Amino acid sequence: MPNRRQFLVAGLGLAAAPLLTRVATGAPPSDTAAPLGAKPISVRAYGATDATTPLGPLQIERRALGPHDVLIEILYCGVCHTDIHYARSEWGQSRYPCVPGHEIVGRVEAVGSAVTKFKVGDIAGVGCMVNSCGACENCLTGLEQYCLKGPTLTYNSPDPESGGHTFGGYSDKVVVTERFVIRIPPGADLPATAPLLCAAITTFSPMQHWTLTAGQRLGVIGLGGLGHMAVKLGVARKADVTVFTTSPGKLADAKRLGAREAVLWSDAAAMQRLAGQFDLLISTVPQAYPMQPFFDLLRLNGTLVNVGAMEQLQGIPGAGLARRRRSLAGSIIGGIAETQEVIDYCTARNIKADIELIRIEDINRAYERVNNKDVRYRFVIDMASLKAGEQAHA
Amino acid sequence: MPNRRQFLVAGLGLAAAPLLTRVATGAPPSDTAAPLGAKPISVRAYGATDATTPLGPLQIERRALGPHDVLIEILYCGVCHTDIHYARSEWGQSRYPCVPGHEIVGRVEAVGSAVTKFKVGDIAGVGCMVNSCGACENCLTGLEQYCLKGPTLTYNSPDPESGGHTFGGYSDKVVVTERFVIRIPPGADLPATAPLLCAAITTFSPMQHWTLTAGQRLGVIGLGGLGHMAVKLGVARKADVTVFTTSPGKLADAKRLGAREAVLWSDAAAMQRLAGQFDLLISTVPQAYPMQPFFDLLRLNGTLVNVGAMEQLQGIPGAGLARRRRSLAGSIIGGIAETQEVIDYCTARNIKADIELIRIEDINRAYERVNNKDVRYRFVIDMASLKAGEQAHA
Repeated sequence: MPNRRQFLVAGLGLAAAPLLTRVATGAPPSDTAAPLGAKPISVRAYGATDATTPLGPLQIERRALGPHDVLIEILYCGVCHTDIHYARSEWGQSRYPCVPGHEIVGRVEAVGSAVTKFKVGDIAGVGCMVNSCGACENCLTGLEQYCLKGPTLTYNSPDPESGGHTFGGYSDKVVVTERFVIRIPPGADLPATAPLLCAAITTFSPMQHWTLTAGQRLGVIGLGGLGHMAVKLGVARKADVTVFTTSPGKLADAKRLGAREAVLWSDAAAMQRLAGQFDLLISTVPQAYPMQPFFDLLRLNGTLVNVGAMEQLQGIPGAGLARRRRSLAGSIIGGIAETQEVIDYCTARNIKADIELIRIEDINRAYERVNNKDVRYRFVIDMASLKAGEQAHA
Repeated sequence: MPNRRQFLVAGLGLAAAPLLTRVATGAPPSDTAAPLGAKPISVRAYGATDATTPLGPLQIERRALGPHDVLIEILYCGVCHTDIHYARSEWGQSRYPCVPGHEIVGRVEAVGSAVTKFKVGDIAGVGCMVNSCGACENCLTGLEQYCLKGPTLTYNSPDPESGGHTFGGYSDKVVVTERFVIRIPPGADLPATAPLLCAAITTFSPMQHWTLTAGQRLGVIGLGGLGHMAVKLGVARKADVTVFTTSPGKLADAKRLGAREAVLWSDAAAMQRLAGQFDLLISTVPQAYPMQPFFDLLRLNGTLVNVGAMEQLQGIPGAGLARRRRSLAGSIIGGIAETQEVIDYCTARNIKADIELIRIEDINRAYERVNNKDVRYRFVIDMASLKAGEQAHA
C-alpha cells in the first residue's frame, strides 16, 4: 500500500488525501449516479497528439466494466524507453493520441461481476499487455506475449473492445480484464515495484528461458532501466555479473548494484580479456549498435539475447557466431504467469527498481533525460500529480 | 573400396591400375629405399599460388610419419565452396600456395608405430580438421571444431607440425594423426561418400544440436552441396522438409531429393503462407544475403542456423527475432566422433551425395560452375587424374 511517506517523497502531501479516501471506501465518483464502471467513464490522461508536440493533458474514455474486468485507480506508472519510441513514433507505427505507460501499479476501485482474483481495495499491477486471444498454442501455454494473433498491448495497440486503440498508464484509471492484472503482494514498495512490470520481467524471462544458473557468467549490455534490473536479478540467482556500459559515470554504480565487474565498451583490452567467458549476454540497449565485439565474449553455445533494439540489428558476424556455435536471440517481456512470478520473486527478496519519482508535468523533461541516459534508473510518475494538476487549474 | 566401375566412371580405365596395385600391396614407392613414411615425402598436388591465377600442379611436402600418424593415398576429394573462398582469398586470410580440399577419401598406405585404429589398406576419410589441442574443455567433450586454441584445419591453417601451413586434399597423399581420421565402412560408395565429410556433417550437426525430430518442419535455404545433404538428412529423420532456392530449375530436384515443398525466395505469397511454421532453418548459402524474410518463417523458439556465410550477416530484424523468441545461430562442421557418426549413419542408410566426378585439370572450370550454381550437387575429383596427368606429361 502506498503510505504517507511515499506521497511526501512526491512532494504532494495532503493533496493526495481525497484520492486515498475515495479509493479506500470504494464509493462511486460523485459525477455519476450509476454504479462505478456500469458505463464508460471519461478519465484524465497525459499523452502525445503527434510525434513532435510535447505530451500534455488529455481526456480519454475507459470502457464500462465487463464481467471479467477490473477498474484500477492508477497510483504509479514507470517510464520506459518504449514510451518514448511510441510517443515520438520512432518505430513508425504510432497511433494518436498516444497515452504511454505500461508499468502500472494501482488500487482496485471496482470489479466486474465474474471477477474472482481481485476485490475492491487490492493493489494490482498491469504490465505491457492487456489481452490476448487466449486460444492459440502460445496463449494456452502461458506465453501470451507471443500470442499468434498478437497480444493487445497496454497502449498504442488496436483495441478489439473499443474499436480504437489502447491507452496506457499515464492516466488516472484503467480497465483491464482480470487475466492480465497482476497481484502486488503486501509489503511491496509500490513506486519501486511499478518498473518490475516491464524492466524486470523483460530481463527475468530470458534468464529463465536460457536457464541462467548460479556461477554462470552473465553480461548485461547497457545500464538503464532494464539493465539495472538485469544486474539485480542476475545477482539474485548468484550469477557472476559483468556490466558493459558506455557511461564512465555508471561504472561504480554497476558494482553497487552487485556486478563483479563493469567495463566500458571502448575498453578494448578488457573486451579481449573477457573473450569467450560468457554464458549469457542480455542486451538492453534500446537502439541498434554494432554488436560484433560482444559476440566474441560468448563461450561455446552462449547466447546474446536482445531485448532492446527492435530495428534491424547491426554487426552480426557469420564467422563469429559459427566459431563457438553462438546464438543471437530476441525476447519480449514475459507471459502473465511469469510476470506474476517475477513480482512475487522480487517482493520476497526486496528487489526493486532504483527510481526517481516525478510529477506528470515533468514527463517531457524526463524523456529528454532518458534520451541523454540521465536517469538512475527509472522514472516513475506519481499519478496523484495528474489530479493535483487539475485541481491546481480548477 | 573403389572398384573398377568407379574408375571407369572417371574415364581413366587402366591408367589407375598401377596405383591400385601399389596401394594393395603396401609396397613403398619406388623412388625411395627407406620405409614409406620414415622421412618427409614430396607429393603431387594442385593448388593456387595467388588469389587470381588458375589452380595448377604443385609439388608439396608431407611430414614423416609420427607414431600416431596415418599416411593416406587420396582417391577422391570433394569440392566445397569453401575451397573457392580460400583459393581466391575471398575471406582475406589465405596463405599461398593454397592446396584446397577437405572432403578426402583414400586408402591407408602406411601407419605410425602407435596407430591402432587403422591398418594398411583400410579406407579412411579426412574432413575439415586434422588436429586440435586435445586438452581444452571443448576438445575433451568431442567438440574439436570449437577447440579453444582453434583446430588445425585441413588446409590453409597454421601448421604447428611443419611451421608452415596445411595443405588439403587436392593431392595424392596426406599425413594425418589418427585421431582425426575417419573410418569409412565397407560398402560405402567412395566418391559419393567424400562430400559427407563436410557437407553432411555440417548440416547433420545442427540437426543433432537443435534436436530436429520426426514431424518437425525443417527449412533448407540454398540447394547446393550442403543444402542437398541437409534435405536428405532431414528426410532420413522424418522431418517435414521445405527447400528455399533462388533457382527455378532446382524446384523439381528438391522434391526428388525428398522435400515436401520447394519455394522460390521471390515467391512472396508462399513465404507469407509459410510464416511461423518452421522449427529449424538451416542456411547453407555461402554468402551473406538479406535474411529478414526467413525469420518470419520460424515459429516460437525456432532457430535459423547459418552454416554458410562467414562475413557480416544482413537483414537481422530486432523485432522479428523478439516477436517469437527466435534465434539466429552459427555452427561449423562437427566433432570427430560426430563425423564418424554421420558417416556410419549415411552408409547404413545408403545416403550419399549426388556428385559429378571430375578430373583435377577440370578444377578451374568446376569453380566457375560452382559460382554459377551449376552443379548437382557436388563435384568430386578423382585423384587418379593427378597421377594420370603427370604420366601424360612424362
